[in-house]
Amino acid sequence: MIIHMSRNATQQQLQAVKDCIANRELAFDISNGKTGVTVIGVLGDCSKVEESVFEEIDGVDKVVKISKPYKLVSREFAPANRVIKSGSMDIGGKSLVMIAGPCSLENDNQIMTIANYISDLQIPVMRGGAYKPRTSPYSFQGMGFTGLQYLVHAREKYGFQIVTEATGLHNHENEDGSIESNTVLDNVVKYTDIVQIGARNMKSYGFLREVAIKTKESKKPVLLKRGESSTLKDFLLAAEYIAANGNSNVILCLRGIRTFEEEKFQRYTPDLGAIPVLKRESNLPVFFDPSHSTGYRSNVYSVSMAAVAAGADGLIIETHNDPSTALCDGEQSVTQQQLSEIIRDAAKIRSTLYPDGYRFPTGVVCN
Amino acid sequence: MIIHMSRNATQQQLQAVKDCIANRELAFDISNGKTGVTVIGVLGDCSKVEESVFEEIDGVDKVVKISKPYKLVSREFAPANRVIKSGSMDIGGKSLVMIAGPCSLENDNQIMTIANYISDLQIPVMRGGAYKPRTSPYSFQGMGFTGLQYLVHAREKYGFQIVTEATGLHNHENEDGSIESNTVLDNVVKYTDIVQIGARNMKSYGFLREVAIKTKESKKPVLLKRGESSTLKDFLLAAEYIAANGNSNVILCLRGIRTFEEEKFQRYTPDLGAIPVLKRESNLPVFFDPSHSTGYRSNVYSVSMAAVAAGADGLIIETHNDPSTALCDGEQSVTQQQLSEIIRDAAKIRSTLYPDGYRFPTGVVCN
Amino acid sequence: MIIHMSRNATQQQLQAVKDCIANRELAFDISNGKTGVTVIGVLGDCSKVEESVFEEIDGVDKVVKISKPYKLVSREFAPANRVIKSGSMDIGGKSLVMIAGPCSLENDNQIMTIANYISDLQIPVMRGGAYKPRTSPYSFQGMGFTGLQYLVHAREKYGFQIVTEATGLHNHENEDGSIESNTVLDNVVKYTDIVQIGARNMKSYGFLREVAIKTKESKKPVLLKRGESSTLKDFLLAAEYIAANGNSNVILCLRGIRTFEEEKFQRYTPDLGAIPVLKRESNLPVFFDPSHSTGYRSNVYSVSMAAVAAGADGLIIETHNDPSTALCDGEQSVTQQQLSEIIRDAAKIRSTLYPDGYRFPTGVVCN
Amino acid sequence: MIIHMSRNATQQQLQAVKDCIANRELAFDISNGKTGVTVIGVLGDCSKVEESVFEEIDGVDKVVKISKPYKLVSREFAPANRVIKSGSMDIGGKSLVMIAGPCSLENDNQIMTIANYISDLQIPVMRGGAYKPRTSPYSFQGMGFTGLQYLVHAREKYGFQIVTEATGLHNHENEDGSIESNTVLDNVVKYTDIVQIGARNMKSYGFLREVAIKTKESKKPVLLKRGESSTLKDFLLAAEYIAANGNSNVILCLRGIRTFEEEKFQRYTPDLGAIPVLKRESNLPVFFDPSHSTGYRSNVYSVSMAAVAAGADGLIIETHNDPSTALCDGEQSVTQQQLSEIIRDAAKIRSTLYPDGYRFPTGVVCN
Repeated sequence: MIIHMSRNATQQQLQAVKDCIANRELAFDISNGKTGVTVIGVLGDCSKVEESVFEEIDGVDKVVKISKPYKLVSREFAPANRVIKSGSMDIGGKSLVMIAGPCSLENDNQIMTIANYISDLQIPVMRGGAYKPRTSPYSFQGMGFTGLQYLVHAREKYGFQIVTEATGLHNHENEDGSIESNTVLDNVVKYTDIVQIGARNMKSYGFLREVAIKTKESKKPVLLKRGESSTLKDFLLAAEYIAANGNSNVILCLRGIRTFEEEKFQRYTPDLGAIPVLKRESNLPVFFDPSHSTGYRSNVYSVSMAAVAAGADGLIIETHNDPSTALCDGEQSVTQQQLSEIIRDAAKIRSTLYPDGYRFPTGVVCN
Repeated sequence: MIIHMSRNATQQQLQAVKDCIANRELAFDISNGKTGVTVIGVLGDCSKVEESVFEEIDGVDKVVKISKPYKLVSREFAPANRVIKSGSMDIGGKSLVMIAGPCSLENDNQIMTIANYISDLQIPVMRGGAYKPRTSPYSFQGMGFTGLQYLVHAREKYGFQIVTEATGLHNHENEDGSIESNTVLDNVVKYTDIVQIGARNMKSYGFLREVAIKTKESKKPVLLKRGESSTLKDFLLAAEYIAANGNSNVILCLRGIRTFEEEKFQRYTPDLGAIPVLKRESNLPVFFDPSHSTGYRSNVYSVSMAAVAAGADGLIIETHNDPSTALCDGEQSVTQQQLSEIIRDAAKIRSTLYPDGYRFPTGVVCN
Repeated sequence: MIIHMSRNATQQQLQAVKDCIANRELAFDISNGKTGVTVIGVLGDCSKVEESVFEEIDGVDKVVKISKPYKLVSREFAPANRVIKSGSMDIGGKSLVMIAGPCSLENDNQIMTIANYISDLQIPVMRGGAYKPRTSPYSFQGMGFTGLQYLVHAREKYGFQIVTEATGLHNHENEDGSIESNTVLDNVVKYTDIVQIGARNMKSYGFLREVAIKTKESKKPVLLKRGESSTLKDFLLAAEYIAANGNSNVILCLRGIRTFEEEKFQRYTPDLGAIPVLKRESNLPVFFDPSHSTGYRSNVYSVSMAAVAAGADGLIIETHNDPSTALCDGEQSVTQQQLSEIIRDAAKIRSTLYPDGYRFPTGVVCN
Repeated sequence: MIIHMSRNATQQQLQAVKDCIANRELAFDISNGKTGVTVIGVLGDCSKVEESVFEEIDGVDKVVKISKPYKLVSREFAPANRVIKSGSMDIGGKSLVMIAGPCSLENDNQIMTIANYISDLQIPVMRGGAYKPRTSPYSFQGMGFTGLQYLVHAREKYGFQIVTEATGLHNHENEDGSIESNTVLDNVVKYTDIVQIGARNMKSYGFLREVAIKTKESKKPVLLKRGESSTLKDFLLAAEYIAANGNSNVILCLRGIRTFEEEKFQRYTPDLGAIPVLKRESNLPVFFDPSHSTGYRSNVYSVSMAAVAAGADGLIIETHNDPSTALCDGEQSVTQQQLSEIIRDAAKIRSTLYPDGYRFPTGVVCN
C-alpha cells in the first residue's frame, strides 16, 4: 500500500500517518515522488487494512494498493529509476558503472597488477573473490580474510571502491585449516563498499534477511545475483527480502541462466532479454555479468555490448593479468587489452542510446 | 576435406582434382579464399580418403581435414564472412539488413498499409506469413496462395524484396476448404526472394533436402530459423543439410529458445549469447528475431539493440498497422513509430561497432 | 461442443442434428458414451453457436461446451479410456502393449535375428527405422524401402505387427543415390500396422494433416511422439490435428524432454511425470520410450518399470542382437536378456497396480 | 585415492599408513569393504601423491585412484549400498522408508491429528516444516521453535522419528517479531532424528560444511535435497562436502527439477530418471519427493509408484488432514486415504522388484 501525501502536507500530518501505521503493527518506508510529494510505502501484510483508514487522515492525497507481489522494489511503488549513491558514485544513474577484477584473489602481486590497470582504465569498482563458493570440497576455497585485506590495500592505493561476495554466515576455513573468527558476512560488510550476494545464495532467505539487517544503517549497496534457475518474479522477491528488512539499495545483477544449451559453447545462457523486463517491473539498477553468463573470454565483448544496448546500468567483468594461470575461471577472464576495448565501446553505446540514463523505449507503458 | 590450389594452378590441374573427387564418388563445392586462391570443399564421407591422394596432384598447395561436424558452413572451410547476394542487396555484408512485416497476411488493405510504411522507412525486405504453423487445428491457418499474391503485389508496387515461410511439402487447405494445387514449398520458392524455414521444421531433414534441391539453381537465400530447443551444433548441421544438398546461401536466424522462464514476461528466452558463437563457428550471416524471441512489443526495442550490438547481420521484426486487431501475435508486433526508432538506433550501433561489417573482437581466434 | 442424444433418440432425430451442424458449416464426429448413448462432437469454431440451437432439436438430451483447447482427444469429450483396435490387439486396454526392435534396420540378417527373439518373447509389435532422421547429412539415413520390405518379411514369418517412422512427404534418397518413387509417408502407411510420427515432426502441422488424411479410412493407429521441448498442451493439440482431420486413433508416446541435465548421464530427461497428466487430460493411450528418453542401456530397466508403475499403457524399446556394432544408437539398445527381464517385470507391475487397465488413483477427479 | 589393506594387515601397519597420510597433510576415512578388509579413503588433493608411496608400506594390498570428482560418496570408493542406521531403522536397506507429514507445522491440533494417522499407517518418520523458506518476505515463515517442539511432542507420544529442514545459520524471526536465541541449524540438529537440507541451500557450501561439523559426532542422517537446477554431478559434490567434513550419512533426495514444462500441470518436472544414475554413481540411499516434484495431489500416487519402481529407497510425502485449509502447499498434500493407498502399493512394488533392497538390473556394470 502506498500513501501519497498532498503537496502541502505538514509534518504533523505526516506524523499522524506514521502513527496510524505503527498502531497496526506495520512498518513503512518514505520516498519522494518525481514531483516532490512525499510517498509512504506501508510494509507488511496490508491485506486486512482498508485504504479508507489512511484516506481519512488530513494531508493524505491518495492511497494505492500495489498489485505486484514485490512492493518496495517495484516501479509501481516509485516510478523513477532508483539512483543508489555509493561514495561519490551514482549507481543506476546517467553513467554506466563498470566493475572489474579477478575471479579469485590469489596473491598480493596478482591483485596489485590487476588493480593497477583497473585504475589506469578509470574503472570505479574493483571486484575479487576472497570467499569462493566452489562445487567441489577439494577445490581452492578462496584466500579469505587475507585476500580481503589485499583488496582493501588496493583500494587505499588506487582510490576505487571494492566489492566481494559474502558467501554466508559461517566462519571461513582457510587453506591452512585455521578458522576465521568473524563470519564471512561480517567481514564483507565491514571491509567492502558493495556487498555481493552470489547466485547460489539467492534463495537463502534467512541469510538475505541478515544481510539487510547488517547493512541497514550504512545502506551499503547490495549487489544481488540472480539464481541460475530463478524466475524473474523470485529474483525480485529476493530483492524485496532485503528491502523489506531495511535496505532498499539493491542492485539486480543478471549472470546467465541454466538451460539446455551446450556447455562447450556457453557455460550458461546469457539472460539479456531479462534486462527490459526488470527495468519495467522494478526501479532498481540492473547490472550484467558477461563473464559467468558466457563462460568464455571470446564471448565477453559481444555480450557486454548487448547488455549495455539492452539498457544495463552496469557491467561486472572478470579480468586477469595472465588468464592461463588463473586459479579459477581463467577461461572467462579477459585481458587488459580486451577490457579496455569493452569499456571504450560500452561507453559509446550508452551515450548513443541512453545519454541521460535508462529511459523506456517509445510506447512502453509501465504497469 | 578442403583442397587449397596453388595460386598459379591451371584449369587442367583443377580438372584433375575434380576428376579424382568424382572417381571416389564424392561431390565438391568450389570457393575462393581471401587471397584469391581456389579452395575446393570435398563433400561426403571423406573418412577413408587419405590427404595424400590429392596432395600428389600438380597444382595442389595443401589439403586440410575439417574437424567440425558441420563442414561447408564452418569458418574452417572458408574464414571470411559469407556475403550472400539477393538482387542488389548484400546479406552478411557491411550494412545491417532489416526485414519487417506482419505476422500473418490478413487482407489486401492491411498488407498495403504496412507495405507503404515499410517502403517509407526504406526497409529492403517485407515479411508476411501466408502459410501459418499454428498449434491448434482450429486457429487461422493463413491466407495461403491469395496472401502470397498480395505480398507479390506489394513488391511490384514498392520494389522491396519479400520473404515468407515454407511450412512443408503438403498442399495447403484454404479457409474455404479448397486445396491448393501446388505444394507450399513450390509456391514459396516460386514467388519469394528469400525462402524461410520455420523453427518447427528445423529438424524435418527430408524437407530441408527438398528446399535445397528446389533452390539449388536459383541459389535463393534460405532463412533458417533455429528450433526452439535446438543446440547450436544441431542448428549448424541443419544449415549443413541445405548446403550439402546444393545451396550454401543460408541465413542463420535466432528466434529465442524454450527455457524455464515465465511466459508472462518473455514467451521465449532471447538467445542473444548465441550470436558470437555462431559467428565464430560459421561464416554464414546471422539474423535475430526480436519479436518471437520476446513475445511482447515492449521488449522488442531493447532486444533489437542487443542483437545488433552483439554482431547480428540483420533483424526480422513483426509490425502491424493496428496490433490490437492482428489475427496472430498482435502482442509482439511493433507499431510504425516503434519500428522507425528501432531502425534508426540499430543503424547507429552498427556503424559505431561494425562499420565494415562483422569483425571478431580483439583476442578471439577462430578455431 | 458435445451433443448427447437421449437414450431413445431415433435415426431421424440424429439426422436432424447432423443437418443443423452442416448448415453452420461445421463438421462432427460420433462416438458412443459409456452408457450406450450417442455423443456427437461438433468440430470447428463453435464460439458463435449457441447451445440452444441444438437443445431445441427433439432427441437431444444435453449440450456441453468443451473448455479445453483440445477437444476430440480430451477426457471431457469422452471420459472412458479410448481402446484402439489394431488387428486382434487392444491398445490402451487391459494389457500392456510392448513394442521392441532395433533403432535402424540394417540388413536382412540383423532384422531376422532380432525378429526371432522378439517373437520368442511374445512381443506383439516389432519396430525398426527404415527412414532415419539424422542430425548430420553425412550420417546413415536409413535403408529406406528395402529395410521396410525386410520388416514386412519378418511380419510374414512371425505374425507380429510392425511400426516404423514416417519422416515426411518427401521421396527418400537411398544410400546409392537413387530416389524412391513413393513418398515416405505413402510407403509407411501402405506397409506398416502402426504409423509412427517422430518427435522432430510433431509440429509439422501440414504433415500431421496429411497423415490423418492418408489413414482416415483404415483408421490405422498413429503413434505420435512428443517433441523434445513440446509442452503437454501442444502435444495434445498435435494429436488433435490428427483427430480433427479424420483419425482419432492416436497413441501419445513420451520419449524424454530436453533440459539442462548432463548428457553423459541421460541424453534426455525422462518425462515420466507427464503420464498421469496426459491420462487425466486425454482419453488416448499413453506409451513411453525408455530408450531415447534415457539414452543409455543401463537406465532402460529402471525407467521402464517407472513408466508402467506410473500408468503407461505400453513401452517402445530399442533392442539389438549386438549393440556394440549397431549403426545407430547402440548405447541405448538393450540385449535380448535385458529385454526379457523388462517384459517379465513390467507385466508384474501392470497386473499388480492396474489389473483391469488404467484407472484413476483415489481422489483424482477428472475435470 | 583408496588404499586396500591386506586381509591380515596388523594395527601397526594400518597406523603406518595413517602416519604417511598425515605427513602429506591429507585426511582419511576408514571403511570396511564387502569382504571384511579395511579400506582407507585418502581425502584432499591427491594429485601430487604417487600410489607407490603407499604401495611400499607393509600390509597394503593395493592402491586405487578414484576417477570421479566425488570420492567418498561414490560406488568406486565402496561398491555396496550404504545402509544408514537411524535408531532401529535401516535407511537404504531392504525396506522402503516412508516419511510423511504436513508441509508446514501450523498448530498443535493439526500436528497431532496428522501424527495420529501417520502412526496408524506405521510410517516410521514424520516430517513437518518449522522453518519455511518462502519466496515472499510477506508469506508465513513457519512456526519456528514452537512448531519444532510440537513435533518433538508428537514423537514422544507416537514413537516415530522426526525430520525438519534446517534453513540456515541465522536466528529465526518468529511471527510475533521475537528472535530465537539458537540458530536454526542448532535447533534442528538438537531436536530431530534426521536433518533436512533444502533444495535452495544445496549450494550454500559454507552451510553444508557447518551441517557436517554439527552432525559429525552423532552421525545423524542428513537428508540432502537436489537443487532445482543442479546437475547430478553438483548434487553428488554437495553430498561430498558433507562427507568430506565428517558425516557420510547422507540421503540423496530428488524433488523435481525446473524445466520448460507447464506449471499448471506440474510445478516441477519429476526427475525420476535420475534414480538409476545416482544409484550407479553413488552408494548412498536415494529418496524421492513426489509432492514438491509434481505440485499437485492428483499426480502424487503415480509418481510415487514410479519412484519405487525405478529403485528409490524411500519417499517423503506431504499430507494434510484438511488440504484445502493448509497454510502452505495444500494443493500438493495428499489426504489420509490417498496416503494409505500409496503406502500399500509402494510396498507391493518394492517387494516385487527389490525384495532384498536395491540391486543393479542385469547387464549394468558399475564403473
